[in-house]
Amino acid sequence: VTTLYAEILAIGSELLLGGRTETNSLFLADQLAALGIPVRFKTVVGDHEEDIRQALQVAVSRAALVVMTGGLGPTTDDRTREAVAALTKRPLRRRPEAMNSMMQRLAQWGRTASPAQLRQARIPTGAVVLNNPVGSAPGFWVEWKRAVLVALPGVPIEAEQMFFHEVLPRLRQRYAEEPRSVLRPVTRHTFQTFGLPESEVEQRLEGVFKAGHKGIGLGLLASPRGVQVSLTGKGEMPQALLDAVRQRLRDWLFAEQDQTMEEVIGRLLTEHRLTLAVAESCTGGLIGHRLTQVAGSSAYLDRVVVCYSNQSKVELLSVPEQLIAQHGAVSEPVAAAMANGIRERSGTDLGLSVTGIAGPGGATETKPVGLVYVGLDGGAGEPVTKEFRFHGERDTIKQRASQAALDLLRRWLIGRNSR
Amino acid sequence: VTTLYAEILAIGSELLLGGRTETNSLFLADQLAALGIPVRFKTVVGDHEEDIRQALQVAVSRAALVVMTGGLGPTTDDRTREAVAALTKRPLRRRPEAMNSMMQRLAQWGRTASPAQLRQARIPTGAVVLNNPVGSAPGFWVEWKRAVLVALPGVPIEAEQMFFHEVLPRLRQRYAEEPRSVLRPVTRHTFQTFGLPESEVEQRLEGVFKAGHKGIGLGLLASPRGVQVSLTGKGEMPQALLDAVRQRLRDWLFAEQDQTMEEVIGRLLTEHRLTLAVAESCTGGLIGHRLTQVAGSSAYLDRVVVCYSNQSKVELLSVPEQLIAQHGAVSEPVAAAMANGIRERSGTDLGLSVTGIAGPGGATETKPVGLVYVGLDGGAGEPVTKEFRFHGERDTIKQRASQAALDLLRRWLIGRNSR
Repeated sequence: VTTLYAEILAIGSELLLGGRTETNSLFLADQLAALGIPVRFKTVVGDHEEDIRQALQVAVSRAALVVMTGGLGPTTDDRTREAVAALTKRPLRRRPEAMNSMMQRLAQWGRTASPAQLRQARIPTGAVVLNNPVGSAPGFWVEWKRAVLVALPGVPIEAEQMFFHEVLPRLRQRYAEEPRSVLRPVTRHTFQTFGLPESEVEQRLEGVFKAGHKGIGLGLLASPRGVQVSLTGKGEMPQALLDAVRQRLRDWLFAEQDQTMEEVIGRLLTEHRLTLAVAESCTGGLIGHRLTQVAGSSAYLDRVVVCYSNQSKVELLSVPEQLIAQHGAVSEPVAAAMANGIRERSGTDLGLSVTGIAGPGGATETKPVGLVYVGLDGGAGEPVTKEFRFHGERDTIKQRASQAALDLLRRWLIGRNSR
Repeated sequence: VTTLYAEILAIGSELLLGGRTETNSLFLADQLAALGIPVRFKTVVGDHEEDIRQALQVAVSRAALVVMTGGLGPTTDDRTREAVAALTKRPLRRRPEAMNSMMQRLAQWGRTASPAQLRQARIPTGAVVLNNPVGSAPGFWVEWKRAVLVALPGVPIEAEQMFFHEVLPRLRQRYAEEPRSVLRPVTRHTFQTFGLPESEVEQRLEGVFKAGHKGIGLGLLASPRGVQVSLTGKGEMPQALLDAVRQRLRDWLFAEQDQTMEEVIGRLLTEHRLTLAVAESCTGGLIGHRLTQVAGSSAYLDRVVVCYSNQSKVELLSVPEQLIAQHGAVSEPVAAAMANGIRERSGTDLGLSVTGIAGPGGATETKPVGLVYVGLDGGAGEPVTKEFRFHGERDTIKQRASQAALDLLRRWLIGRNSR
């Protein structure tokens, strides 16, 4: 069985410099994989006609489909049109269909086309013009030798919309004749874990692949929010393999696919009809920000207080001053008192707290940067607390601490479930 | 003048799928640009020996320096070593210097090398072994034909540390003989703006380039936190150009280079010796999270409260219940009352507030998703408020709202400055 491969060419000098991550290729890779056309190479090139031409030539020599993004704008440093024209020897002509849709779009915004924008309607001869549903720059689709070349704008929302409306239907039609074995979609299943180092996750998964799982790739990706395990292969993932992975990851597995910890928490709180209030210190609002990323979180999240000063811990959470004086603000008893204080003050079912040292300053002889205490008050008995010692920069420690707090809450909610 | 070019080859199947952004190449491009070696192409390829070999061959044909990242780990899908050996015809041999440093590293962690890890010490004959200061996988440097090939690990912190300790000194030595005109560093100056659409920023900058600014590129990048303007060119940026850009961007310019809005706020509050408390609603803690990303923010940030429920607005901020009943929680009077309430309750100099509808739910006939009010109480006279109507998804609206609130505070602090 031969395979159809795609290649992505992202065009733009800013993509070759630091400070800018390119997201179009991630979206396109996912979309193409779902169609059964895996991406084998991805190239980033600056706004130089000769470099774009060279990269295109290499791409066409090894892929059946080349999707370009960027370099279609109105300014003179947008060179994608020229590079394609030079490579395919199909001169640029101003095309009425490109003009019309561009004028319409600009008219909607109450504007007319500037001379620079007229450049955007110049399209290689013989190419199909792709309408831009959200911006002014048209794209195009041109077949050359045995390859299909597609040019999309660089602005993510424009690339996405043009892909869905103009490219996807044409790809389906173009490859409709291919045997089904070729176009079997690439599937990917991801497992999100927290609490185990990468090496231990790997050990746990050792030998999980059996005969019959050939061609399925395993990937591990560590971040401050945990280790992600991914399985990738053509066709459907074997259920037995998914189950085996689940079993080995046990309750370190908090979510599958793209679900986030905050979404899991939202689902569990909703199921149990419980309300939550949070008292943060070193995480500075990150837990609140994460919980409120979930649409509808106002149904279970009552409030969050970020108590950076000791005084605010006393005032807003009724943490006894003497407790802070005796144990310090970063301590197990203070974490417990914060969880209890926020729960009682808010009248919610649950109170979650975090106190710690995010660094780089604030460490003492006995309390290093990265020391974090998490507390949870469920209303019956003493609050649960847990100590963590994290490493890394300020943001890394904040991220890990927020995940640790939400994971403690998740485990408590699951435990409650099984009682 | 000929130019030395570099090419980056990022290796890893996970980099070709969605959900994963690759950051090593951004770091490397910046470092190489500072050395005067611009990156001209960047290629991403999966963990397939033949694909890596092909990509390497193309890279070597057009660049003097090829930096690879990834594919050096212990598992059998790490194929960078094999691909380089196949291309250069220099067979892999287990190298004592690679073994020693790997064993030392593992011993520090109280571990010994697994059979799989021993693969990591197999390095192409004639290559220089690059020590890994933070992980177990060694890298290598090999010269082939007229190019230098450098292989670094994929884990960002390992790639960075190995680059600084092992690669940078060797690059300096290797290219010491090149004329200075070749190695003139690429410099980049960025300006961060908020409050103007991209097209208006572009209009304001029209004609800012004069004769003598040839070879300097202008880039615009829009995000929910504003529009970034960048100038890129070889050698020093002309001061007159930087000043002209500053003048045209006026007070929409809030920071330059990598400085963030939260860092600007931190600097201004520190300069004015003012303390701050924040009351958030729709931003859910994001403002607190951002302010506390700045080390030392505990000196001026007293507390943040996220009042998701109306009750919490009444209890924690003394917002009159009747005011909410009359105008709704998302309204100018409530934003003002929140700012005043948090300032008075905390005893800080300043109180900042946000209330709005982040969506997708919560809209009414008169109040659409994206309607946001920001309030600021400086202690004298009525609080300042401002209305915004944002578009986008929940996270986009949260990001824009947080930036709008911080920008209002910034403008107030600057105004105070000039009085």
